[in-house]
Amino acid sequence: MSRWALGVDLGGTAVKIAVIDEDAGMLEHERHPTKLDEGPEGIVGQIGSLVFSVYGRFRNRLGEEGFAGIGLGAPGAVDSERGMLSYPPNLPGWEHYALKSELQKLLIRDYAMDCLLILENDANIAACGEAVFGAGRAFSDFMMVTLGTGVGGGILLNRKLYRGPNGTAGEIGYLTIDFGGKSVHAGVRGTVESLIGKKSIVDMALDTYRLHGREKWSEEIHGSNLCDLSPRTLEKAAHHGDPVAGEIWDRVGSILGVGLAGVVALMDIRKFVLGGGISGAGNLIFSPAFDQMKRSTLPSMHDGLELVPAALGNDAGVYGAAALCFSSLL
Amino acid sequence: MSRWALGVDLGGTAVKIAVIDEDAGMLEHERHPTKLDEGPEGIVGQIGSLVFSVYGRFRNRLGEEGFAGIGLGAPGAVDSERGMLSYPPNLPGWEHYALKSELQKLLIRDYAMDCLLILENDANIAACGEAVFGAGRAFSDFMMVTLGTGVGGGILLNRKLYRGPNGTAGEIGYLTIDFGGKSVHAGVRGTVESLIGKKSIVDMALDTYRLHGREKWSEEIHGSNLCDLSPRTLEKAAHHGDPVAGEIWDRVGSILGVGLAGVVALMDIRKFVLGGGISGAGNLIFSPAFDQMKRSTLPSMHDGLELVPAALGNDAGVYGAAALCFSSLL
Repeated sequence: MSRWALGVDLGGTAVKIAVIDEDAGMLEHERHPTKLDEGPEGIVGQIGSLVFSVYGRFRNRLGEEGFAGIGLGAPGAVDSERGMLSYPPNLPGWEHYALKSELQKLLIRDYAMDCLLILENDANIAACGEAVFGAGRAFSDFMMVTLGTGVGGGILLNRKLYRGPNGTAGEIGYLTIDFGGKSVHAGVRGTVESLIGKKSIVDMALDTYRLHGREKWSEEIHGSNLCDLSPRTLEKAAHHGDPVAGEIWDRVGSILGVGLAGVVALMDIRKFVLGGGISGAGNLIFSPAFDQMKRSTLPSMHDGLELVPAALGNDAGVYGAAALCFSSLL
Repeated sequence: MSRWALGVDLGGTAVKIAVIDEDAGMLEHERHPTKLDEGPEGIVGQIGSLVFSVYGRFRNRLGEEGFAGIGLGAPGAVDSERGMLSYPPNLPGWEHYALKSELQKLLIRDYAMDCLLILENDANIAACGEAVFGAGRAFSDFMMVTLGTGVGGGILLNRKLYRGPNGTAGEIGYLTIDFGGKSVHAGVRGTVESLIGKKSIVDMALDTYRLHGREKWSEEIHGSNLCDLSPRTLEKAAHHGDPVAGEIWDRVGSILGVGLAGVVALMDIRKFVLGGGISGAGNLIFSPAFDQMKRSTLPSMHDGLELVPAALGNDAGVYGAAALCFSSLL
């Protein structure tokens, strides 16, 4: 009998919960709006109730013996050992919260569920999801990079999650690659995220179009004008042959490539899995990123370099959270 | 009875060999000019003969039973498993050479020495030396950074040498921190080494003095003029209160700090041991480097940040090479 677990991905917008079977993969997936205005206690209550309801429905079908536990991913700094979540972005008012012990207490008290509960950072669980069920299965060492509103990362070394001594490893978004530059994010100058976080891409695009004296998109992008500029419309424009849009994606890809090259130089990791909404631009990003990664590393570091798209999309988190319970990722 | 080993550090200028006792530390140290013009075979012969001579002198005193083996550090890319050395800088004409098996064959054939022989990259053995006998003893996770002609690094994670999947980890000199900048080294733009390798520091200093319209050093630096500019004279000038020299060291330190911040962000390493000739400038570098490292990281990454001077100087390599034989570093 294969093992199964619940994967929970707590975000500022939604709580996602899934039933993941070791062999069969995802059996159930639910998505609920995060009860942000109810604060930490309210959200713990929400998660507890969702967990119990989903567990109750699958307990008989999959068997209690095979149930490995609950994995929970959350944004911000996670101290996995002590189960503390600190300053989660998009969860205002949380600061420091003992998420694990509070959830565990509630599950025992209200639902008599006394099972394994693992808390981990959301970028790390996404990397674990890709490692066990997705594009990272072929790699024993890789970095998962998520391009979206922010730029995040998770690292697998020898098929284990690399958390670092304090649990904050993998923050490629905070890698400085342009220390004399103008861009600043969260008070740090010239970081990857300051350059190619979603908002920076849009700003870069607006500047570039204005520099080219363009106030409107090319005709192919009917109904769009610069006010509607987003990574999606920019992607569409590039696919329709808009040269400025192509130039912008080249630049985004190059900047990413410089950041990845830093990972190659420091960690000797040569496999990268690229996910997140912005990575949907596909080869518009992958191709310049790969070229730049080679230009920014020594030829002796080029053997085996690979940059592949993530396979699990927004489900990587719930897959990975569950996988923490039955794979030897920790 | 404590164990002992021979540490050998092969460089382009000298072959260093030392007898290292697990408890008592260094018992003997020799330094011989590298027989560069005799090529790989000649140098293997030179190392073999040195090893046998030193081993012969210490065998009776320390006991054959306690002899753990020979550790050998070499520049360039080292494939430890296969014992191959590739493109060692400063060893022209070597390209790919099976250094380990050739030395092992020679030791057995000519000297009947059939013992453990470990080949490792020189930056990595220096890190191991500091980890076991030097400034890294207090840290379970740290990076040793060597500032000299080049900028190199070695990483210890959980008291083990982190080599990376291909053995090239720790190359902080090749970390890009200024991708749009002018400096280039080994074909890669904006790397730490391109900015603060020894030659770049001298060039930066010359440019800065000229920018200030200065053709001579301050009066305190008797007999020195710009032609004699070196990190040493620049250090002296700064200690004598020359403001331009102070400004240059601030910049060198800041650039280093940006590079170290990248290690903090990616690997969550917060302890750094700084060695190499340039690090002799002490607080002229340490202080701006530490300040910049904080500016270039998130406050949530500041806990436990430390930057300490290496303790073993040029002997770190032989210490570490020997330590590979009796410590569980691999």
